Amino acid sequence: MDSMGIDMQILSYTAMALPVIPPAEAVALMREVNDRLAAAIQAHPDRFAGFATLPLTDPEAAARELERTVSKLGFKGAMINGRVGGLFLDDPRFRPVLEAAEALEVPIYLHPAPPPEPVIAACYAGLPPNVTTVFATAGWGWHLETGIHALHLILSGVFDRHPRLQMILGHWGEMIPFYLARINQTLTPAAAHLQRPVADYFLEHFYVTPSGLFTLPPFLLTLQIVGADRILYSVDYPYVQDRQARAFLEQAPLSPADREKIAHGNAERLLKLNPSA
Amino acid sequence: MDSMGIDMQILSYTAMALPVIPPAEAVALMREVNDRLAAAIQAHPDRFAGFATLPLTDPEAAARELERTVSKLGFKGAMINGRVGGLFLDDPRFRPVLEAAEALEVPIYLHPAPPPEPVIAACYAGLPPNVTTVFATAGWGWHLETGIHALHLILSGVFDRHPRLQMILGHWGEMIPFYLARINQTLTPAAAHLQRPVADYFLEHFYVTPSGLFTLPPFLLTLQIVGADRILYSVDYPYVQDRQARAFLEQAPLSPADREKIAHGNAERLLKLNPSA
Repeated sequence: MDSMGIDMQILSYTAMALPVIPPAEAVALMREVNDRLAAAIQAHPDRFAGFATLPLTDPEAAARELERTVSKLGFKGAMINGRVGGLFLDDPRFRPVLEAAEALEVPIYLHPAPPPEPVIAACYAGLPPNVTTVFATAGWGWHLETGIHALHLILSGVFDRHPRLQMILGHWGEMIPFYLARINQTLTPAAAHLQRPVADYFLEHFYVTPSGLFTLPPFLLTLQIVGADRILYSVDYPYVQDRQARAFLEQAPLSPADREKIAHGNAERLLKLNPSA
Repeated sequence: MDSMGIDMQILSYTAMALPVIPPAEAVALMREVNDRLAAAIQAHPDRFAGFATLPLTDPEAAARELERTVSKLGFKGAMINGRVGGLFLDDPRFRPVLEAAEALEVPIYLHPAPPPEPVIAACYAGLPPNVTTVFATAGWGWHLETGIHALHLILSGVFDRHPRLQMILGHWGEMIPFYLARINQTLTPAAAHLQRPVADYFLEHFYVTPSGLFTLPPFLLTLQIVGADRILYSVDYPYVQDRQARAFLEQAPLSPADREKIAHGNAERLLKLNPSA
């Protein structure tokens, strides 16, 4: 692996619109998914690592599957594709999953998913159907939905209940860095039930990745807001090619030490990757 | 008025959650509102200018009221507080209003409003009620809603039909500048019915104001995306005091010429203000 460290790929299964799989099927299916992922990693352990896919319709089983995949298969965390049956992860039924992630000291990557149907109908309809589809997902709606989800976790007190839980957000933080000062100013006085200012939770419980968004302005803003210790480089292969992603980071206006942190140091620390692998 | 030009105040009536006023009442009521605003301006014409409030439930009357207020009362444009009865301004029934703004060469300021009830229920509920209220409005939801509205106008082809129409967005562009590259990359291929790349419409039909958000990272990002010719300084008085707003602009890392454009030059050009007033 090269000195930039960006050759290590974190594998996971993501879905554009994940169906809600009944618990009776989900537990066995996700176990098979994770075992296949583990087999792919074992064939190239110096190249790949994995995030678990969890049967979230059965939260107790999801917690056990996270523990199995981390302790037995060496997975580095879990990737969760948005809401489960319309519920955010701060719903009390998901507490076992958050407790397991906290106890195992592995992060949860909150991947975008489309907003719920009533939101699509109210906000994204009235345009050519293919425009609505992209507008509600990768073009805009994914990011609003995922930013709402992350802020909902903060505002519901998840990080007061789980003070060591760490999350990862893609796409330069799903819009939150752009408005973090505004969010903090307006929501901290309203959220008197929280122990700390709203911005503190974002700055201390979230890591941010580019997810293939390689233009300087959002990168520089994110760096100004979250700092070089909280950015994990990511390529979004195969949508973006490694060469393009590497050139962006090499040319970004960063000190050598910050470039190394973003390229691999932060990921090695958070995901407990073996830097000599 | 001082050399910064930020003493000129643009007056308008805004509402947190504007009720839909039936046409029979709206036309007379908005006329009275605008006449009172004109009287306040006439008492201090060197200090104040105005945006019209329009009876949008009767679009033909709204177009006539915009023409009356601009040509007879010297108003500088219109302020529209989000959707009208759930409809975005690209709905065909509002075409007379957009045509009037274009013909009169005055901008429409698209002010935030709360998202529709189904969106609040799906995205912002499940928290203490006062947290939901702020989360759905000034803390986050306003800006998503207004960004969606602006993008809906672009994607529906409003600016192909009205090539000279100019809009104003507050809050550093309601999130759009942070993701403009992403929006352009994903939505331009989908929106094959449009004449031009999606980003072009934003860059050539929208001006952006701070609305009292005075931290450097979103300002610098907005400057990098829209440029110094498209930023209009605004204070959001009385929520922010003039002294604080002035200090931010004086200390911002800008060339003298760009500082003058942002402080007053762009507004004087767009709103046809008399710089000697």
